[in-house]
Amino acid sequence: MTKIALQGIEGSYSYEAMLQLYGQKPYTCFDTFEAVFDSVESGSCQLGILPIENSSTGSISAVYDLLNKYDVQIVAETTLRITHNLMASEPISPNEVEVVYSHQQGFDQCQNFFKKYEKMHCIPFKNTALSAQKVSQEKKCNQAAVASKLAAKQFGLYIIEENINDQVNNFTRFILISKEAAHSESANKVSFQSVVSHTPGSLYKMLSCFETEHINLMKIESRPIRNKPWEYTFYIDFEGNIEDAATQKALDHIKHYSKAFKLLGNYKMGEVL
Amino acid sequence: MTKIALQGIEGSYSYEAMLQLYGQKPYTCFDTFEAVFDSVESGSCQLGILPIENSSTGSISAVYDLLNKYDVQIVAETTLRITHNLMASEPISPNEVEVVYSHQQGFDQCQNFFKKYEKMHCIPFKNTALSAQKVSQEKKCNQAAVASKLAAKQFGLYIIEENINDQVNNFTRFILISKEAAHSESANKVSFQSVVSHTPGSLYKMLSCFETEHINLMKIESRPIRNKPWEYTFYIDFEGNIEDAATQKALDHIKHYSKAFKLLGNYKMGEVL
Repeated sequence: MTKIALQGIEGSYSYEAMLQLYGQKPYTCFDTFEAVFDSVESGSCQLGILPIENSSTGSISAVYDLLNKYDVQIVAETTLRITHNLMASEPISPNEVEVVYSHQQGFDQCQNFFKKYEKMHCIPFKNTALSAQKVSQEKKCNQAAVASKLAAKQFGLYIIEENINDQVNNFTRFILISKEAAHSESANKVSFQSVVSHTPGSLYKMLSCFETEHINLMKIESRPIRNKPWEYTFYIDFEGNIEDAATQKALDHIKHYSKAFKLLGNYKMGEVL
Repeated sequence: MTKIALQGIEGSYSYEAMLQLYGQKPYTCFDTFEAVFDSVESGSCQLGILPIENSSTGSISAVYDLLNKYDVQIVAETTLRITHNLMASEPISPNEVEVVYSHQQGFDQCQNFFKKYEKMHCIPFKNTALSAQKVSQEKKCNQAAVASKLAAKQFGLYIIEENINDQVNNFTRFILISKEAAHSESANKVSFQSVVSHTPGSLYKMLSCFETEHINLMKIESRPIRNKPWEYTFYIDFEGNIEDAATQKALDHIKHYSKAFKLLGNYKMGEVL
């Protein structure tokens, strides 16, 4: 039976993303993103779910770096609408809150809200659901957490202010990883990583295939190469199916212009539900 | 007299970067990156110093987003070699340490070290120098901080393990911002931000001038546009001086292909000392 690895606990956004992709399935929770990658590479879990980008705060760099380190493939993605809420163990007013726990990204996505409440001391914590669990367990009258409605329900907390994120349209894109690549006719998105030579024009030459083959380049992300200051690995997403002639031509071109290349997956792009 | 704004306190890496660029000057310390931008835009400080990229962990996204938000120009940059050290209020063994304070980036740059000491509980703190100050003030026998040698000296701490960063070549690039642009003949790096239309090929068309004008594209960074999910602002650095014909042609081309454009500065690139 397929077991899914996720970072966090029941009630986390990764847990919600799993429910959105598959409904309730057997799953194992891990403390770190790296433990999720490790469990999938080693085969103890067949699939792993990971956040890779938020529409307000950007890419989750740690996950990009782990895609480089581990031998796994992206096999699906899903986009989750993220709505943050302030929650406490009693139905207090936000004015009474002095200490707030959440993941740093939770704070980053609610900056305008926290500017209104200068008394609140924001303490970064491992993830949003664990923050809710902590507040639920400690039951201190001046503490609150920023997390999802599902987390409030999970840990019996009162939502004392809802929808506190700066952007109404706040989404996180999650990827599903597996040890084996999965190809299907419905796959319409290709992800790869490439290192081009450290000479003028090399990135531009690598990208020229998207123009030649009329392919839509969706995203380009650069991450440092750890032992080579100011050199970068590029992570690129584009529209295509690796059975298509245009995609194959583009990938041949990209490989030719890359010093290092890794196909990260070909999968169906996630729709916003 | 020129006053410099910096985030952190005396002994922080921003403080070291200031010393490296200018030597000792009048300065004001702020709690956040945004307060540094604000003080420069409002004129209460004439210059501000900010970290923008680390060679191991990548760009400091918050600073890129603030370059978009505030009306300031980059007028110089410098590159600082970052060497992290474990320090405590007594000359204890690293094995005795149970709680470690540092900025999250400090932990991220010393991952291999912390894998060796599983007992250590890493707690992210505002910045590395403040972590050293905290350990110095609290004098608890199981606490340590990850910070610079300068911070250890500043707060009278014992270095109990030195050079704990994963990469020997660990550098942070700092920018100097001002309200007014500064142009000089020695300027050899141009930074700008651009939003291209959300259609296939638009980024590639914007970049084509670097090939045509034989200009070296140094860095491309993408950041989300907060209210437009999956659309990006690109931050690009290239070699040039805005008095050169090739640079002027390239900038005209870039402006033509941009929906939004902002020149972020033309300055002398920082050398590794």
